[in-house]
Amino acid sequence: MAVLITGAAGFIGSNLVKALIARGGHVVGFDNLGLGCISNLESVLGHPQFNFEQIDLSDIDVYREALMRAHADDPITEVWHMAANSDIPAGISDVRTDLRDTFMTTFNTLEVMRELGICVILFASSSAIYGDRGGARMVEDTGPLLPISNYGAMKLASEAAISAATESFISHAFIFRFPNVIGTPATHGVILDFVRKLKASPGNLVVLGDGTQRKSYLHVEELIDAMIFIRERADGRINVFNIGAGDNGVTVRFIAEQVVAAVSHEASITYGKGNKGWVGDVPEFAYSIEKLRALGWEPRLSSTEAVRRAVREIVEQEATI
Amino acid sequence: MAVLITGAAGFIGSNLVKALIARGGHVVGFDNLGLGCISNLESVLGHPQFNFEQIDLSDIDVYREALMRAHADDPITEVWHMAANSDIPAGISDVRTDLRDTFMTTFNTLEVMRELGICVILFASSSAIYGDRGGARMVEDTGPLLPISNYGAMKLASEAAISAATESFISHAFIFRFPNVIGTPATHGVILDFVRKLKASPGNLVVLGDGTQRKSYLHVEELIDAMIFIRERADGRINVFNIGAGDNGVTVRFIAEQVVAAVSHEASITYGKGNKGWVGDVPEFAYSIEKLRALGWEPRLSSTEAVRRAVREIVEQEATI
Repeated sequence: MAVLITGAAGFIGSNLVKALIARGGHVVGFDNLGLGCISNLESVLGHPQFNFEQIDLSDIDVYREALMRAHADDPITEVWHMAANSDIPAGISDVRTDLRDTFMTTFNTLEVMRELGICVILFASSSAIYGDRGGARMVEDTGPLLPISNYGAMKLASEAAISAATESFISHAFIFRFPNVIGTPATHGVILDFVRKLKASPGNLVVLGDGTQRKSYLHVEELIDAMIFIRERADGRINVFNIGAGDNGVTVRFIAEQVVAAVSHEASITYGKGNKGWVGDVPEFAYSIEKLRALGWEPRLSSTEAVRRAVREIVEQEATI
Repeated sequence: MAVLITGAAGFIGSNLVKALIARGGHVVGFDNLGLGCISNLESVLGHPQFNFEQIDLSDIDVYREALMRAHADDPITEVWHMAANSDIPAGISDVRTDLRDTFMTTFNTLEVMRELGICVILFASSSAIYGDRGGARMVEDTGPLLPISNYGAMKLASEAAISAATESFISHAFIFRFPNVIGTPATHGVILDFVRKLKASPGNLVVLGDGTQRKSYLHVEELIDAMIFIRERADGRINVFNIGAGDNGVTVRFIAEQVVAAVSHEASITYGKGNKGWVGDVPEFAYSIEKLRALGWEPRLSSTEAVRRAVREIVEQEATI
C-alpha cells in the first residue's frame, strides 16, 4: 500500500514526501520537474519506501499509464495532489499556465483516480480562492469566492471539481487552504526574491509596493504537520480547512528588514508605490484557523517567528548553491 | 456596434437573441448546434440586425478567427456568454462534456475577448454552484461553494476565471446565477421529459424520485428581462446576481400533475424512491433574490404560474413537431 504525491519535487511536495517516509509510509512521487527540482529529493532517491517518476500530469495518457504501473506494483490508496503552478505572476502573463498546471492536473488526477478506483484525495488549495477581502478574517464557509488571480481561480476550479467528484466516486476529500508557506527548499516567494536581489546588488534592496502589505506566513514544517493531523482526525466526506499561523501576519517591510539584517546589513531599502506587488496580489490577508484549532491543532510559530526562521534557512540554502 | 451571444441557438440564447434584436441591437450569434437547434432562430435568420455562425467555441483557433471576422465587420462591445452543456446528467456520465462545453468555452471566451480588447462579459452562471444546502435560502455571498455536479463545478470554475479576469482586462462582469428556467423552445428539462414520456405511453407517467423535490422555476421571458435589467442598472466591476422567482418553488409532483392534466388526464403517476432524481441533482432549492429586488426588479410570475404557462407552451411545441 502506497500513497501518491503529485508535485513531489516541489517545495511543499518534497517536504511531504520526507515526512510521510519518516512515518513509515510508502510513497510514489510524480513531478514534471518544471518548477520542482530533483535535487529537493536527493536524500530520499533510492530509499526503499520511495519511487519517483518524472511525469507531465497535464497529459492524461502519460499520467494514467504511470499511475497504473505504480498501482500494479503497490496499490495506491490515496493521492496527495500538491502539483500546481506556484508562480502566480507567471499565470498573469499567460493564463494557460494555471489552466494546464493547476486546473488540468487536478481534473486529470480525478479522472485517473476514478478509473483506478482510488477514492481518497488530499488537495493543496489556497487562501487565494477568497480573493481580496480587505483584510477581513475568512472562515471556511466565507463567500462569495471571487479570486483575483488566475492562480486562485484555478485552485477554486479544482476545489469545485473535487467537490463534484465527492458526490460520486470520491469517498473522502481533504481540501487544505494554504496561507503563504515559507521555508526550504525555497523555489519562489518574497524571501528568496529579496535574498537573491540583495546578493546581486548588496547596497540596496528594491521592494515592489510600499511595504505595507501584510500577510500571514506559516513554516512548511507546520504546514505538513497540520495536513497530516487533519488527514488523521477529520472524518467528513469533504473536509475543508484553512491552515495558517492564525495571526495577523507581518508586513513586507518586516521581511525586507529581516533579509537585509541577515544578508547585507548596511543596505538601504527602496519602496515602490501602492500596496499591491503585482496584478492579482492580495495586499492584506488574515484568515481564521478556528476550525483547525477546534480539531485540536495549534501552530507553534507565529508569522514573525516563521519569517525569522525561514530567512535563516533560505540564506543558508543560497550560500551553498 | 454589436454584441456577441454564445449559445445563441439554445433555449436561453435564442430567446436572448430575439429580445436584443427587438430592442434595436445588432447581434452576432455563435453556437456549435450540439444541444442548440438552428430552427430556434428561424424567425431571425436573415434579419439585418443578426448574423449567425456555427462555431465550436471549445476550439480557440476557430473561435478567434470567427470573432475577428465579426469584429472587423461590426465591432463587438460585449459578450453574453450563454454557451454551456445544459444536459446535467450527460456531465455525470462523462466529465469531459462539462469541461469542454461549459468551462473551456468560458476560458476561450475570455482569451479571445482579451486579444480583441472586448471588456464587458455577461455570464450565465447557475444556482448549481451552491451545491446541496438542504433548502437553506442562499444569498450571493453564501459560502462555502461546494457544487455536487460537474455542471455546477464547471459553472463555478467559469465564475472564478471571470473574477480573475476582472482584475486585469475585463472592465465589467455580470454573473447571473440562474434558477431552473422553463419555457420554449424547450430542449431539455423536467417538463419536456414528462410531456414526451406521457406521449409515448399515455396511460402512466413514471417519475424518478418520490416527487417531493422542490425547486423554484422562472419563466425564460422573466429571465431575459432580469438580465437586461441588471445589465442596465448594476454598475459594479463584478456584478453577481441570483435571478429567480423568489419563492419556495413547486414540487416535482405538482409538475407531474400539471403535465398529466394537459397531455393525458386519465394517466396514473408512478413515483420512485428517494428525493434525488440522479447523482448531482439537488433535491430542494430556494434562494434569495433580495439583491435583485433591491436593484428594482420584481418577478411577475410565481413558480406555480411559470410552470402552468410553460406546460401549455411545451405541450404546444411538441404538438407541432
